[in-house]
Amino acid sequence: MESNKKSNWKERWHEIIYEADTKEGRLFDLILLGLILFSILVVMLESVDSIQQEYSSALDIAEWFITIFFTFEFIARVIVVTKPTKYIFSFYGIIDFLSTIPKYLSLILGSSKYLVAVRVFRLLRVFRILKLVRYVGEANLLVKSLKASRARILVFLMAIFCISIILGTVMYNIEGPENGFTSIPRSFYWAIVTLTTVGYGDISPQTPLGQFIATIVMTLGYGIIAVPTGIITAEMSKQSQNSVDLNTQSCQHCSSEGHRDNADFCFNCGESLDENN
Amino acid sequence: MESNKKSNWKERWHEIIYEADTKEGRLFDLILLGLILFSILVVMLESVDSIQQEYSSALDIAEWFITIFFTFEFIARVIVVTKPTKYIFSFYGIIDFLSTIPKYLSLILGSSKYLVAVRVFRLLRVFRILKLVRYVGEANLLVKSLKASRARILVFLMAIFCISIILGTVMYNIEGPENGFTSIPRSFYWAIVTLTTVGYGDISPQTPLGQFIATIVMTLGYGIIAVPTGIITAEMSKQSQNSVDLNTQSCQHCSSEGHRDNADFCFNCGESLDENN
Amino acid sequence: MESNKKSNWKERWHEIIYEADTKEGRLFDLILLGLILFSILVVMLESVDSIQQEYSSALDIAEWFITIFFTFEFIARVIVVTKPTKYIFSFYGIIDFLSTIPKYLSLILGSSKYLVAVRVFRLLRVFRILKLVRYVGEANLLVKSLKASRARILVFLMAIFCISIILGTVMYNIEGPENGFTSIPRSFYWAIVTLTTVGYGDISPQTPLGQFIATIVMTLGYGIIAVPTGIITAEMSKQSQNSVDLNTQSCQHCSSEGHRDNADFCFNCGESLDENN
Amino acid sequence: MESNKKSNWKERWHEIIYEADTKEGRLFDLILLGLILFSILVVMLESVDSIQQEYSSALDIAEWFITIFFTFEFIARVIVVTKPTKYIFSFYGIIDFLSTIPKYLSLILGSSKYLVAVRVFRLLRVFRILKLVRYVGEANLLVKSLKASRARILVFLMAIFCISIILGTVMYNIEGPENGFTSIPRSFYWAIVTLTTVGYGDISPQTPLGQFIATIVMTLGYGIIAVPTGIITAEMSKQSQNSVDLNTQSCQHCSSEGHRDNADFCFNCGESLDENN
Repeated sequence: MESNKKSNWKERWHEIIYEADTKEGRLFDLILLGLILFSILVVMLESVDSIQQEYSSALDIAEWFITIFFTFEFIARVIVVTKPTKYIFSFYGIIDFLSTIPKYLSLILGSSKYLVAVRVFRLLRVFRILKLVRYVGEANLLVKSLKASRARILVFLMAIFCISIILGTVMYNIEGPENGFTSIPRSFYWAIVTLTTVGYGDISPQTPLGQFIATIVMTLGYGIIAVPTGIITAEMSKQSQNSVDLNTQSCQHCSSEGHRDNADFCFNCGESLDENN
Repeated sequence: MESNKKSNWKERWHEIIYEADTKEGRLFDLILLGLILFSILVVMLESVDSIQQEYSSALDIAEWFITIFFTFEFIARVIVVTKPTKYIFSFYGIIDFLSTIPKYLSLILGSSKYLVAVRVFRLLRVFRILKLVRYVGEANLLVKSLKASRARILVFLMAIFCISIILGTVMYNIEGPENGFTSIPRSFYWAIVTLTTVGYGDISPQTPLGQFIATIVMTLGYGIIAVPTGIITAEMSKQSQNSVDLNTQSCQHCSSEGHRDNADFCFNCGESLDENN
Repeated sequence: MESNKKSNWKERWHEIIYEADTKEGRLFDLILLGLILFSILVVMLESVDSIQQEYSSALDIAEWFITIFFTFEFIARVIVVTKPTKYIFSFYGIIDFLSTIPKYLSLILGSSKYLVAVRVFRLLRVFRILKLVRYVGEANLLVKSLKASRARILVFLMAIFCISIILGTVMYNIEGPENGFTSIPRSFYWAIVTLTTVGYGDISPQTPLGQFIATIVMTLGYGIIAVPTGIITAEMSKQSQNSVDLNTQSCQHCSSEGHRDNADFCFNCGESLDENN
Repeated sequence: MESNKKSNWKERWHEIIYEADTKEGRLFDLILLGLILFSILVVMLESVDSIQQEYSSALDIAEWFITIFFTFEFIARVIVVTKPTKYIFSFYGIIDFLSTIPKYLSLILGSSKYLVAVRVFRLLRVFRILKLVRYVGEANLLVKSLKASRARILVFLMAIFCISIILGTVMYNIEGPENGFTSIPRSFYWAIVTLTTVGYGDISPQTPLGQFIATIVMTLGYGIIAVPTGIITAEMSKQSQNSVDLNTQSCQHCSSEGHRDNADFCFNCGESLDENN
């Protein structure tokens, strides 16, 4: 295949920023990857009181440095791409944009006033981690398995939801507010905590009857964990087996595909699959 | 296929209420679905003390509205169906009936007196969520897998029960009442909490020997979770594979079934499977 | 098949006690099943202080009734069987014997003195539940799968043990006695509690570094639960598939077995599998 | 196959120390196995304060005995092997060396001063348990399955990491320091504790919104445990099936491999697979 590309600067930068085939492209990706992880680290450290008080200015400088780099990156992506509007309103475009604004907004709103709003904008910066999705190429089988099992997983979650509401209401009536089951929503929270085998212990049944029902709930939760596992495993097994038992050969005579790896004759027309025959 | 139905009002309403093929039928189902979820929300909010005190009358009106709608729905279902008694004593019939009565009963009994009884009737309203079962069509494979594995799951649960009773008694003798293991039923409760990896922490072993045995129990529980998972996964794999690898074609010549999806010749008699051949 | 049995009383009672083919045999089994569960219930209730104080004499009578029944049952089994010594030293024989003696021993030792010894004998009565094993016929596939995976499960448990010892020691050095990790055995207990996702919360890391390592331990435990599951599921899938894809037909010509369910010709010698052909 | 080995003392000892084919070799391995487990026990007991105070000198003697044995073993291994440097810098060589030095180092540094350093050296002794790896021959399938699923497991762990960071930040903003979510790293710790269904309960959500989000996190964690399970089970199923359904026979005529265990004719060329035919 012959390449007719005109090698102007726009295409060169497109290659560097959007692709990873050239040396410069790979370097750009590595730097970006490092900066994303660094920015997450800064957000995390900033939330630790003792670190925030001592290294306040250093964290501020780091945050400005990251923000400016991401700003330039965003502008570059918009300039370099052939259809800017399509990029800006794509998933990555929105994430890239939201990754740059929190620091600018903190300038406008001030850091002392509107404290809650600022906290929420700080939160936004953590979503920069979603930029990592770009670098995940191996996730296909997982996503494919999850998509294929979507309907069944939904049914399963709905079943969990219904069971938890009924169990929550039953426990609210048995244990009552005096044992920590102060309302049905709170009992529902307990039912989920128990059914999923998390078991914080912040609410736990005190009456013998409550403990007896809790016993059933736990056994149920312990047993039905097998259901999502069964769904996804069956799906993965199928996809994994298909990719093994069949090869990608195509019959010269009838063009049928999906032959077994060691087949010599077409299952469809009976012709030999060997090209040099 | 030609339809010979006489289109009187009873059949028209039967179509709307029981089926989802017409536009009106789908609309009816959607409204009902919304009301069921709304009624669950009302029951949950009513149980939160602060909300109950402030919005008492609003919740009361909402509850009356839902009750009246469900009453009309129940009456309509009874009138419209050809065999009313069969419907009334069916699973859905009983659920539909129980969904309407709690509010009427609270009128008769009063809300201040017989408080416990009223609380139990309130509970009944949550079972309205079981009406949702009507809308779950995808659950077949799950239910089929669970049914096919019923005997094995029962054996597994019995094993859990026996192990927990023995472990509970052993721990009751080792830890004793001074460490929270006040009776064998309570120790049995602890054994289930531990074996199912829930781990509330409301009762936990204090003596070194108790902790050593708890270690074994936890490892056991961690290991045997594989058993229900294995049972259900094996069953689902089998059903999932069968439904994919084979199609429902039947050979014209020898009537054999279970051909591979892309087979052109019968595996049984060698005749072509293509009807236009 | 013709039966040549001489129908004397010994054989009749052998049929009733050991088999479940006759009406009387099934009745005997049902009564025994009920009494075992009843005796477990009595042991459990006896351990609850409030019940023990109030219904002391009723529980005592119940316990004597059960003990006498089990004594007669044990004597009957010994008399009726053809090789008494073989029965007495078999698994069931020992369990049956141990089920009868605790009450007699409490007579000899007295209930007030030697309290600990009496408590241990009481414990023995719970093992009566093992008599239930007699009635579990469905457990074959489970036991077969577990036996076939024995070696791998052992390797897995050993790996858990080694990882937990290393993690326990590391955490003991990081957290130290001031945060509840008072000794390496206790840290090992914490590592098992965390790795198996039980998570009581009676010991939990307090230092940032300890919490960071705990994070890794939890993710590890969450991930490696897949290993026993994978082992047992793979084993069950294999056994379950074998029993489905193949039938029990045997070729008339070459006597080979393991034909596919819908096969008409022998895969071994090519002869027709249809007997009326 | 003819053996040309010269049977001098070096080769004899090599056989004893490195192999397990002779009677002496097996005895040496058993003694070593016992000593490793004994040394772990000593380290664990030493960390229990009450035991350390009472049996201080006994533990000291035991530790010296183990150290001297391991020193001789290490020296013997270096002398006996043909390429000493290759052994010394191998995985086992380093483990063997580190197993001997802690006691010597405690002599140099003293036990009262540099307490933290001594504690770390004590820690090293626990890694002696890694010497057990030598005796695990059955772990091949496990390791093979884990290796084959490496890429997918990594993607899964990265997904867990990203989800936990986002959830941790969200909860930090919702619950805040007043409910125990004092910083984002601590909230991240909470997210991992919840997602892996460990659930210590040292930090748990207090606000209704926080509990609602926790409910989603738990259901998520309960559901995605199916993913690593699915990955490893699918891999094990594949490897387990391959080793059963197919044998290693090879056709004399066309050299094709992968025949079914009971096949008599080649699936590839139709020739008989029986050599004496």
